[in-house]
Amino acid sequence: MGGTELITQPDSHTGESAPSLPEHTLEKNREPTHGLIARLGRWLERDRLPAPVETQTLFAARLTDVAANRLARQWSTRYTTADDAERRFLLAELAQTSAGIEPRDDLGVRLFKRLNAQTDGLRFLVGLRADMLRWRKQIAGLTLLERELEGLLSNWFDVGMLELKPINWDSPASLLEKLIQYEAVHEIHSWDELRRRVAKDRRCYAFFHPGMDDVPLIFVEVAFAPKMADNVQVLLDMQTPPDDLSKARWAIFYSISSTQAGLRGISFGNFLLKRVIDELLSELPNLKSFATLSPIPGFAAWLGKQDGKVLQELLHDRTDNQYAQDSVRSGLRWVAQLQKAAVGDASDVVQRAGLKLAAHYLTSIKSGQLIDPVARFHLGNGARIERINWAADCSPKGLQQSCAMMVNYLYSLDELDENLLQLAAGKPRIARHLRWR
Amino acid sequence: MGGTELITQPDSHTGESAPSLPEHTLEKNREPTHGLIARLGRWLERDRLPAPVETQTLFAARLTDVAANRLARQWSTRYTTADDAERRFLLAELAQTSAGIEPRDDLGVRLFKRLNAQTDGLRFLVGLRADMLRWRKQIAGLTLLERELEGLLSNWFDVGMLELKPINWDSPASLLEKLIQYEAVHEIHSWDELRRRVAKDRRCYAFFHPGMDDVPLIFVEVAFAPKMADNVQVLLDMQTPPDDLSKARWAIFYSISSTQAGLRGISFGNFLLKRVIDELLSELPNLKSFATLSPIPGFAAWLGKQDGKVLQELLHDRTDNQYAQDSVRSGLRWVAQLQKAAVGDASDVVQRAGLKLAAHYLTSIKSGQLIDPVARFHLGNGARIERINWAADCSPKGLQQSCAMMVNYLYSLDELDENLLQLAAGKPRIARHLRWR
Repeated sequence: MGGTELITQPDSHTGESAPSLPEHTLEKNREPTHGLIARLGRWLERDRLPAPVETQTLFAARLTDVAANRLARQWSTRYTTADDAERRFLLAELAQTSAGIEPRDDLGVRLFKRLNAQTDGLRFLVGLRADMLRWRKQIAGLTLLERELEGLLSNWFDVGMLELKPINWDSPASLLEKLIQYEAVHEIHSWDELRRRVAKDRRCYAFFHPGMDDVPLIFVEVAFAPKMADNVQVLLDMQTPPDDLSKARWAIFYSISSTQAGLRGISFGNFLLKRVIDELLSELPNLKSFATLSPIPGFAAWLGKQDGKVLQELLHDRTDNQYAQDSVRSGLRWVAQLQKAAVGDASDVVQRAGLKLAAHYLTSIKSGQLIDPVARFHLGNGARIERINWAADCSPKGLQQSCAMMVNYLYSLDELDENLLQLAAGKPRIARHLRWR
Repeated sequence: MGGTELITQPDSHTGESAPSLPEHTLEKNREPTHGLIARLGRWLERDRLPAPVETQTLFAARLTDVAANRLARQWSTRYTTADDAERRFLLAELAQTSAGIEPRDDLGVRLFKRLNAQTDGLRFLVGLRADMLRWRKQIAGLTLLERELEGLLSNWFDVGMLELKPINWDSPASLLEKLIQYEAVHEIHSWDELRRRVAKDRRCYAFFHPGMDDVPLIFVEVAFAPKMADNVQVLLDMQTPPDDLSKARWAIFYSISSTQAGLRGISFGNFLLKRVIDELLSELPNLKSFATLSPIPGFAAWLGKQDGKVLQELLHDRTDNQYAQDSVRSGLRWVAQLQKAAVGDASDVVQRAGLKLAAHYLTSIKSGQLIDPVARFHLGNGARIERINWAADCSPKGLQQSCAMMVNYLYSLDELDENLLQLAAGKPRIARHLRWR
């Protein structure tokens, strides 16, 4: 569920390569400087940059000012059609004007409300903020503007403004292809694979905003099972027979993707699963339990950086005496061994060590926050760590990120509030059998 | 266009009897006290009032807190089904809890976001604010809550979030009946009259919010004419032949009504006519000019309070020598004379005096604001006073409010910004022939 951290982590930078920002846009910035200057030159000749006095109008004029709104339309049209280099130029110019505004009052807010009043203004602003987040470290003065825009977006994308809608094989193809485009956890390789994800025995729900209602802002894919699922390849396999909804007792959230880098830090994602659970319960009242089958995206990277001595300490307890005699193994060697074991024959001892290390990682807190972004999301919703599954995602990505382990976060509606209190006290909730220490 | 001041005048109290607050709700407050207490008693027995610690939860708990959100649902359900006395009780209790919250931070905002996340939450909050505005002088501590809610609503009802949609005879009857219900300027007495307002040769546009899309928030009725219209009864007459759209050069905005008392002070109304003009121009490119035919709602009340001597001064100029010899007439006597003249034979002298007094009233400024609410709305949009029409609305309401005079405000797109600058400098724009002084 690697996409979710975009939404829950305002300060995370993992979103910089989010699906909505394809790699080639980053490539463009690495063009030789002379190319950039040449293109800027052409652009300046072609179409004069608005003079500072004009962009100041975008901030200062009344929201009903006809001339200022015409200028705003020109500015946003130019921005929309510009390439990255030109966009940076336009943003830098805007930030410079912004820095000179004194007293500020609501003038920054007014700029964005003016742009929002244009046709398709909300979509434009979400894209604009994505660019601001990309470039706020390179462009002086951009952070203030970005924060003002974030404040507005957090009201405009308040969960009360959103609509939860199902997506299925009857949905428009133009919408379905966005699932392929934005799926951030378990890639969808073909329309046949997509069809399996939205088949009659599965569910997919997304939050939509009426101002850009052709784009799912965040979506979750749901499977059903008689017990808690422990392997994602089984869920995704096209040959797996359809889930029998009449026997379903468990709903399994096996993929959550947020789509808009420009909405990073806006918190509607935290409401998604609770709203979906309400929907599912009203459609399938036989459901008893709700859990995720989630990746552990930062595990292998974390483990690779750990000191061997520390790991040995971690693993050494009465039931694991043999490790006390072992030679100290570096974190990187642990990663290699766990990956190898996941796809080969794993001894109970290695498997048990892997699960212990994963449990330790999942509950590790740094600067008051869980270090794993997906754990942060689900435990931040009040879920608890229910089970860690060995060899649960043996795809290349699963192996590489988490030595093929996955975790079930359990959403027990009656416990969410209490779990959150525990988390706030520094005690993330984890199932009893995973508490080795 | 008496309804518009609801939107443009946050401090006006004319909205207290807005269409959405039928008179009987005000009546209820005048019930004998023992009845109120008896009913509260019954209610307290029936259903325990939430204890203070519980309403505090509505402010303090996280927005995803399951228990707090359940409580919010109970609270809003109870509020919705309550009568006025019980609502006042609930609001007073909320205001009391609110007053004890320290430090406040965003906790007031959180309360309203929590309520907004309920089903149909936005509509609930708009109604809640209407009640707050009604009772803020009677309930201590309510103003702070009301202001916090206003701040959120001004973002949620930002014009960029609204949709401008046409209403016509093909619209659902459930929507059309809302025009009858909310029409605040020229009452609609029957479905036949309504049919005339939305006939093929007329236009009606409204702003809608996707969160409550069965309610027009503000709507304008438009007629078309070869020249600027000067009499509203002619426009409303069911016998008047259809306007010939191919010959239409003028679009006449003859009625604007806002519908939600709870959105008073939220400024989307100022965008309505400009957006409608854009729509009309794209559909009917032959249109050349855009003007209103508007009431002068405060004229007679103002004139009745004027001192006779002052009025004589006003009217006395070189061309009106006869008034210099006249005996001084009180404001009230002027009102009576103008009303009589409007429906009888008016001498040029009386007519001219009426127009002069109306022009004076329409351009009068007090505490930096035009005193007439409709003038304030249209001049605040950048329109100018183009013509004052004698005997233009001879309905009982027209006679009573404005001695049957009406005014055309001209929307000349290229002049709006300049007109506003003039207005800000204390010089409301008025056509040359109306400048007697």
